[in-house]
This record gives sequence, structure tokens and C-alpha cells, in this order.
Amino acid sequence: MRRFRVRTEKGDYPAVVGCGAWGELRGLVDRGYSSIFVLTEKRIWNRWAEEFGRESGLQAARVVLVPSGEKSKSLAEAERVAGTLLKQGADRRSLLVLFGGGVVGDLGGFVASTYMRGIDCVQVPTTVVGQVDSAVGGKTAVNVGAMKNLVGTFYPPRMVLADPRVLGSLGSRIFRSGLYEVVKHAILDGSAFFERLERELGSLVPANAPKLEGILGQAVKVKVDVVNRDEREHSLRQVLNLGHTFGHALEEVTGYRRFLHGEAVGWGLLAVTLLAERLGYLKSQAAPQGRAANAASEDQGSPESAGDRSDGERIRRLVWRIGPLPPIRNVSSRTIIRLLPHDKKAVGGEIRWVIPERIGKVRIVAGIPLAEARAVWKELQQQTSAADY
Amino acid sequence: MRRFRVRTEKGDYPAVVGCGAWGELRGLVDRGYSSIFVLTEKRIWNRWAEEFGRESGLQAARVVLVPSGEKSKSLAEAERVAGTLLKQGADRRSLLVLFGGGVVGDLGGFVASTYMRGIDCVQVPTTVVGQVDSAVGGKTAVNVGAMKNLVGTFYPPRMVLADPRVLGSLGSRIFRSGLYEVVKHAILDGSAFFERLERELGSLVPANAPKLEGILGQAVKVKVDVVNRDEREHSLRQVLNLGHTFGHALEEVTGYRRFLHGEAVGWGLLAVTLLAERLGYLKSQAAPQGRAANAASEDQGSPESAGDRSDGERIRRLVWRIGPLPPIRNVSSRTIIRLLPHDKKAVGGEIRWVIPERIGKVRIVAGIPLAEARAVWKELQQQTSAADY
Repeated sequence: MRRFRVRTEKGDYPAVVGCGAWGELRGLVDRGYSSIFVLTEKRIWNRWAEEFGRESGLQAARVVLVPSGEKSKSLAEAERVAGTLLKQGADRRSLLVLFGGGVVGDLGGFVASTYMRGIDCVQVPTTVVGQVDSAVGGKTAVNVGAMKNLVGTFYPPRMVLADPRVLGSLGSRIFRSGLYEVVKHAILDGSAFFERLERELGSLVPANAPKLEGILGQAVKVKVDVVNRDEREHSLRQVLNLGHTFGHALEEVTGYRRFLHGEAVGWGLLAVTLLAERLGYLKSQAAPQGRAANAASEDQGSPESAGDRSDGERIRRLVWRIGPLPPIRNVSSRTIIRLLPHDKKAVGGEIRWVIPERIGKVRIVAGIPLAEARAVWKELQQQTSAADY
Repeated sequence: MRRFRVRTEKGDYPAVVGCGAWGELRGLVDRGYSSIFVLTEKRIWNRWAEEFGRESGLQAARVVLVPSGEKSKSLAEAERVAGTLLKQGADRRSLLVLFGGGVVGDLGGFVASTYMRGIDCVQVPTTVVGQVDSAVGGKTAVNVGAMKNLVGTFYPPRMVLADPRVLGSLGSRIFRSGLYEVVKHAILDGSAFFERLERELGSLVPANAPKLEGILGQAVKVKVDVVNRDEREHSLRQVLNLGHTFGHALEEVTGYRRFLHGEAVGWGLLAVTLLAERLGYLKSQAAPQGRAANAASEDQGSPESAGDRSDGERIRRLVWRIGPLPPIRNVSSRTIIRLLPHDKKAVGGEIRWVIPERIGKVRIVAGIPLAEARAVWKELQQQTSAADY
């Protein structure tokens, strides 16, 4: 079990990663809360309520369910949850435990941060994306119309408890989608983590909690390190947006239906890697791309010699080894380009790209012509249209 | 012009009270905002847009209108405003100027605090309630169902600019309703302020900006002093809830339609004063109450000798001198009592009353039997039913 301290303006909180993390809640329960609520989704709660109750000591907590899916990340749903909490007697000294994936964490964090102007909450993420990324760092959000995360707050939880065993009940696709965020973290961190991921990717499956614990702990460390240096996203924290500029546009244009968030980030990583190569930030060898890169799954699980591959090529190989991505052939480059400036990191309409320079180093670049981004998207479509996507 | 520094965890901001306060905005405009928006209501904007633009230098700001009335303090309206801001290109470096009364300030502050997780805002209150109370202190809120201010944030503005000249266009009733909050501040502050208010009340009319400036400045000082000692309402700030426990219940039971907020506070002050007397916290002389107290308007504008009156009696007289209040005879004591625990200051269902002990001193008291509060409400109804309300 690894334990990190996340620093915030409002005080520190622990992020605990590992089998048994839920037990940390026992230390909180006696802090005089007037009532404790669990916000969760039906499917995950049905599977884990008993274990969670036993290990956390929260068997008596009241449960508020939200419908699963991105549509629940709305102000209307936040209002419904707040109304339900009020009806059930939640007051300013109540605790809200957020047991679920990104939707529960983002929506529930927003509700906690605004209900009676803020009540305590604990993040108990149950997906890979939640555990390594969204539950750590205190960002909460709901969507407005097609604009993802337009409305939200910075609001630190009391603790983040990430137990990899809960990932055992995830479907394969949603599990894998989280690994794209892990790849992002590895690119930001450097070659040691990236190489470990190349080595261990084949053993990262939902049921393999001990193996997951190591990788997840390292991924959370990357996030915590960035957040500790920049809670409010003034500049450094923007590096976490790697792969998300294209990714968010892709989610928005497909109405958040075709791609899971992590899958959109997967495409975003591929696109921004191409963009970095095209603009000369990332040295590209004339390695064969497209189908050849996609077919790397024969290497799965076996250590690779990376010496003869460019960093861009290694990123592509790792992304494709995770599995197939839903196709992008119907997503025109024109549409994608139009939505890029909607990214919240844009200021004055100017996009601030997070560009990989090498594994372990990114750079924020503004002023890249949209035509370059458009050309990259077309290239990505051509590379993958030959494949069976 | 008086200038106060409001201290917050996130840094200080100035609250400026006086004729010409809007000019302070000129110092902000050059701070590199990508765009500036004014959130306001049609009626007040039609009247003041030109003066405000000229004095603040913000003639070119884009304007977003919200419908007037408490109904706009909703998450649905917050969502609409956020969507409009997005469409008009607002990003994280945009500034939102909140030009209006409590609805614009509370709703707009909430939007500013959550749009892209927080953009800068400036409060330019245009009502008495806004200037002396709601715009200072960084509390933002929207209502959920019948529950006022259930959802909100603590979010300091960049500045608060209260120019009393803008009150000149207020209708008499809405102007007077703000004076009940001024009475509340005077009770909290002490006899010097209270006596000044007794002396000057008759000259406090919308068009008398110079006279208003003095009283408003003193009232804002009370608020700033409390907030500076307790930004987050942990305990001290609760004193500002004086008159609001009954007041909020009264607003809720009448669907926020019959009483302006200040008027409900007026009733709340009368009720809690009776409660304090009944429980022995506030020494009561056997002075005639009811109609006699209501008829004090013949004293208006003339200094009073307060030596022969109890503090409770003085509070009652001052409240009734402001003007008539919409009647409460149809608001049953049973209903009021049922809604009292909805007050956000309640914890574990227990109401924390702010009880006046004398002018200049209040005490937080929990555990008062609801039967006492109910009896007080009935007494208040009887006192005033004989009058022509």
C-alpha cells in the first residue's frame, strides 16, 4: 500500500493506493459527522457494497444512487442529488463518500463542494481513470450542453482511497480505457516508468490486483507530484492535459457516446505524438507506421528492446498494445479542428498544446496553426483506415 | 468614500463604499483580461448602463441579462448563463462584473466561482441588501426547490464597489427592505451605530446618497469585521444569521413571493427579539407592544430619547419605523416551526439561534424548544393582527 500526501491551499489530504485502502475510512468515521452518505452507481454498489461496508466500517451509511453514464454529470443531476441529501437530512457536518468512477467522482465532488457551500467528501474511485487521475487533485465538474467539465470547482477531498481489487469487476473495455491515462502519466514521468509499463502491460488485467497495485501507485505518484506543485492549474498542471486537446474534441463531436474518456485520450495521444513529430519537437525515425505499428500485440507481455525505436514509435506501440480503439474514420478533421478551441486550457481562443518532446518531457506550445492539427488528424485517419477499424 | 480590506484564505480584496466607487474598476481593466462581461438585469441596466460605463471605463463590455426575481437563483439559470458565456467566448481569463441586486450577485458569484472552475468577478451591488450584506463576504448561492441558498460556494470577488447613488432608482419598498439588514448590523455593532440609525432613519431615502453613504459605510464595516474574523462561517460568522432563522422559514413557506428577503428579516428580527425576551436573555420592560409600537412613525426623523425604553422595545420601534411589513396572519405557527430546522446553520437537526442579549451583543443558543418559537410566532401574529396588516 502506498500513501501520498496531496498538498492544497486548504490543507493536505492522503491518497492511499493499494489492497486494503478502504480501511482508512475507519479513522474518519469517529470525527463527529452528523451523518454519512455514499454516492454511487447501482451496478458497482451491488457488487461491492458488502466488502466496502465491512472494510470501511460504513455499513450504516445511507446510499444515494446516480444513473450510470456521462449524462449524470449535469447540473440537473447535481440539483437532484442535493435535493435528495436535504430530504435525507444531510447538513454541513455530513460526510459524502463518492464510491464509483469518474462520473460519481466528478459529480459527487461538485455536489460536496457546493452543498451548503461545502461538506466533506472522500473519493473512493472504482475505475482505472478514477484511481490514477480524476479522483486525485480536487477537480470537480459537470458538463454544460456538449461542453465537458465547463462548470466545476477545485475542492480537495478528505482522502482518496484507491483499492485495485475493485477493478476486478470492471468490463474489459472500461478497464483498458483507463490504461491510456496510465500511458499519459508514463510519458510525463520518464523512461523508467515507461519501460516498466512496456514490460508489465501484458499482466495488467482486472483480476491481477497485486500487479496493478504497483503500476497504479506509480501513476498516482505522477499525478500527486504535478498537483503538489500546482494545485490550481496555473501552468505546470497543464501538462496533465497531454492527449486531451484532441481527446476532448473527439468526445464532444461524438456526443460522449462513441468513445470512453480514456479511449478519446488514446486517440489524443496518437494525434499529438504525430503533431509533435510533424513540427519537429519529437524526433521521428522513418519507422513504418499505421498497420505495422498497430500489429504490435504479438509482443504483448514480453520485454521489448526500445533502443531501435523513436520515442514517438514507442508511444504508438504502447497505445496500440492496450487494444483496439473505436474508429475515427467518420470524424472529419474539419469538425475536430472547429472544436479544439473549446478546450478549457485555451485562453483568448488560443490553444495551449501539451507537446511531447521525448518520453519524460513535454512542452506547452501556443500558436500552432490549426492546419497542422488538421493534417495530423487526416494522417491518423489514413493510417488506421487500412486496419480493420 | 470608505475603503475596507476583506481578508480571505485566497487573498484580500477591497470593499469600497461611496459615491464614485465604480471608478475603481479602471484599475482592474488593464490586468490582462481576455474579455469582460457584465451580468445584470434589464431594468437596472437600462437606467445605469451609461453612467456605469463612463465611470468604470467598461463601455465595451459584453452584457448578459438575467430575468429579475428570485427564480433566477437556480441551477438551471446558472447553466444558461454559463452556456451563454461559453458561446460569447468567455475563457479562464475573463472577468465577470455582477451589476445588480442579490439575485445577480448570488447567481453571478456562483457562476463565476464554477465557470471553468473559477473566473474573476467584481461585485457591483445595486440594492441596500446587496451593498451592506450579500455582496461582501464571498458567499454565492442558488436555491434548490424551496430551499434557499442550498447550493453555493465561498468565492471572494476581486472587489466590491457600492455606490449609494445607484440606490436612487430603487422603488420605495425594495429600498426599505434593505434597511432591515442595516438594523441587524446595528444590533450586532452596538449602541453608537444603533443610535445613529435611530437619529438618521428619517433621512435615509433613495435619493439622499450623501446621507446613505455614511450609514452604508458603517453597516459594511460591521460585515467586513465579522467576515475578517471568520470567512467560512465556522462560528463567529453565524451572528450574521440574526433574524434569519425565522426569516428564511417565512420566505420558504410563502414560496419567496410574498416577502422581499429584507422584509422577512424584519419579521425575523421582531420574532427573535420576542423570543429573547421570553427566554430571559433580553430584559423586557412591560412597555406596550403591538399597535402602539407600530405607530412610532410620528417620531420619524427626530432624535429619540432611548433612556426609558428596553433594548427589545428600541429594536421593535426601529423596525416599525422603516415602514409597514406584509402581513403574517396567514402564516401558521405550525408551518413556520416545521421549516426552522431547514436553516443551513442547523446541524444534526438542531437549530443554532442567534439571540440578542442587548444592542451590541448576541449569543448563539442551541436547544431552544420549538414550542417556545411557536409561542413567539403566535404572539407576534396577535400583536400585529389588530393593526391594519
